[in-house]
Amino acid sequence: MKVEILAIGTEVVQGDVVNTNASWLSNQMSDQGFEVLFHTAVPDEENLMLDAMARAASRADVVLVTGGLGPTVDDFTLEVASKLFQVPLVPHAESLKRLKTFFQKFNRTMTPNQERQAMLPEGAAVLTNEIGTAPGIYYRYLSAHFGFFPGVPQEMKKMFTEGFLPRVLPFVADGPKRLRRVLRCFGLPEGQLDHWVQGGRSGHAELMGVELGFRVRFPEIDIRIQTTDARLEEAARRLDEAGDAILRQVGEYIFGQDEATLAQVASDLLLEKDLSLAVAESCTGGLLASAITDIPGASEYFLEGLVTYSNDAKIDLLGVRPESLERFGAVSREVALEMARGVRARAKSDLGIGITGIAGPGGGTPEKPVGTVHVAMVHSEGEWEQRYLFPWGRDRFKQVAVATALDRIRRHLLSIA
Amino acid sequence: MKVEILAIGTEVVQGDVVNTNASWLSNQMSDQGFEVLFHTAVPDEENLMLDAMARAASRADVVLVTGGLGPTVDDFTLEVASKLFQVPLVPHAESLKRLKTFFQKFNRTMTPNQERQAMLPEGAAVLTNEIGTAPGIYYRYLSAHFGFFPGVPQEMKKMFTEGFLPRVLPFVADGPKRLRRVLRCFGLPEGQLDHWVQGGRSGHAELMGVELGFRVRFPEIDIRIQTTDARLEEAARRLDEAGDAILRQVGEYIFGQDEATLAQVASDLLLEKDLSLAVAESCTGGLLASAITDIPGASEYFLEGLVTYSNDAKIDLLGVRPESLERFGAVSREVALEMARGVRARAKSDLGIGITGIAGPGGGTPEKPVGTVHVAMVHSEGEWEQRYLFPWGRDRFKQVAVATALDRIRRHLLSIA
Repeated sequence: MKVEILAIGTEVVQGDVVNTNASWLSNQMSDQGFEVLFHTAVPDEENLMLDAMARAASRADVVLVTGGLGPTVDDFTLEVASKLFQVPLVPHAESLKRLKTFFQKFNRTMTPNQERQAMLPEGAAVLTNEIGTAPGIYYRYLSAHFGFFPGVPQEMKKMFTEGFLPRVLPFVADGPKRLRRVLRCFGLPEGQLDHWVQGGRSGHAELMGVELGFRVRFPEIDIRIQTTDARLEEAARRLDEAGDAILRQVGEYIFGQDEATLAQVASDLLLEKDLSLAVAESCTGGLLASAITDIPGASEYFLEGLVTYSNDAKIDLLGVRPESLERFGAVSREVALEMARGVRARAKSDLGIGITGIAGPGGGTPEKPVGTVHVAMVHSEGEWEQRYLFPWGRDRFKQVAVATALDRIRRHLLSIA
Repeated sequence: MKVEILAIGTEVVQGDVVNTNASWLSNQMSDQGFEVLFHTAVPDEENLMLDAMARAASRADVVLVTGGLGPTVDDFTLEVASKLFQVPLVPHAESLKRLKTFFQKFNRTMTPNQERQAMLPEGAAVLTNEIGTAPGIYYRYLSAHFGFFPGVPQEMKKMFTEGFLPRVLPFVADGPKRLRRVLRCFGLPEGQLDHWVQGGRSGHAELMGVELGFRVRFPEIDIRIQTTDARLEEAARRLDEAGDAILRQVGEYIFGQDEATLAQVASDLLLEKDLSLAVAESCTGGLLASAITDIPGASEYFLEGLVTYSNDAKIDLLGVRPESLERFGAVSREVALEMARGVRARAKSDLGIGITGIAGPGGGTPEKPVGTVHVAMVHSEGEWEQRYLFPWGRDRFKQVAVATALDRIRRHLLSIA
């Protein structure tokens, strides 16, 4: 079953909106074994819309149209569709009722342009919009299954999943499905990755039956494996084997699968080992604390985070010694360790983290260029400290420094009983 | 001049990559007065690529093709293009030399598949790739100007701006250009926005000559105004008038223009007034400190940020009174104010901010549901505190609570001499 995704909207072709709907829909359809062959976008111009819909009907079995279902004058996707389908637009009583209820609920009066949203091509099956105002439709035109959705992602996703997909799934019921897995990596040396990219799958029989891809999701790298098969267990077995083979090669650089984050993995381990954490940050400015507290339930193990930008704060709050600041500088192994020790002692936590560095753009010297950062960890078994250079701009510097600290917590917790 | 943007790549149509190249290129071309009418994406399949290129040549004056220029077997965009153009692929000496230098620089051996990238359609003008390996080309086919670019955004952007755009700009030199302005708003009541959306431009003569749009960039709202004119001063004048008219209506909710952020605006004001800041956060977990320290030079005015997740930390670090915690709870007006006072006294800063709330998903009560947050500000002129309810999930809760604090700093600094 061939698929075309068609976006309607001047804001899309003029680049004011990134068409994330297309990639989301493509991913969903590809997973189910549909073959997505075309993405198209055209502006709100009747002849271009009509052309695009007619061409899609002639070359695809499933056509997913997003945008142009709303109440404004720019929304006339269904008017154009009804011309292609050669049926009139007729009021849909149930949708009209939903609209009225929607406006009553928010104490707003419904204007005539709002009512237009309930005018649907005769014979269309309605895809109910439970979140917003504009209903979508399913329509069979010639041999093609058309789905029409609002451009608002949340509305579109719900209507696609609950209303549209069940109608077309039977057509690929016995066909091959795509299974995917993402191995999430951090700190992987480029040479190691190169070995995989350049060397490909030669010598790794386990990788023969899967597609292998890499994607940078800064500061992490995703290793993506996917395979397509009608026999789901067979496909899952291939993914497992390939995943295991990669794990044997890449090892500890892989911190999780699919939607795992370093903060989530570190948090799970802290909970599992019943250990508490406190952090002292200078150059990362609170981003480490924020990443940790992004995880629900962080209050179980996260005691405090101190953002000590000034030297005074480092001395007063963390007990960093003025001599260390003077002799080694605020960005030094000694100060990072004293920060980690200080915050751990202050908060009486099991783990203490200290980060100090130069985010830039100012503040660099030949010995300590912009991008220099010291990360330290102190715990009951000992102390650890390392210097890094991440000269990639302030934002990326903060991200990779925070990821480094989280990864260090993860590796430490994995290494203890 | 009509434009089509064509993306080549199975990873695009399968949804593994979001096609941000299309929106970026569209925005650039629209600004220059080109009319972007089509976005298309097809997989790495020769017949579909050939079809798409031929159709683009027949309906557009400028065709921008991204992807498929790299060294792997999936990269054969230029082979297909040379079939359409009916010219052979020939080695391009200068590009080959660049490739060799590139690999030498990184101490890597160049494989034959890498060399393929220097095989270009005969007669093509080369768009040098100064960042990566694959060169792009400019090619005039029939009446259409073709540009071919790698799919890597940074490479594509540089080659488009420096290599391609100057070649086609003369064709729209005397034509109308698009001028845009974005007014960035925070905290705008929905009713106010509704008034503008629903009421449109009636009664506002200044808005007649511009297009008006709204876009949510959570937690902010962008009011976008744009206009197209060959007379640039005239267009700029219309934008100014429209911007002024909107400013009169929306007033203080507008915190800046175009790429302004609340953190940048608050930082600029702190620098301008020579005032220092310290913040105490509970539920926002360091995100406020991180937002402030995202701004280069934050160390000039940002003294410290304390993330006091535990009650102990609130008491020890900030001097919050145990009685307040017991009587009013950690999420209360009193504790927010004591946090703000405490961090201000500790850091000896001019401004002190305190934030305490319930990010969720757990921890809510009927009196203090998930999403409740108290934001407090203390300074030499007095104290301010307000309770809000942002029941929109943990991430969004943190974002909007931080924006609220930054906006409060901004409004306070604007209000003082």
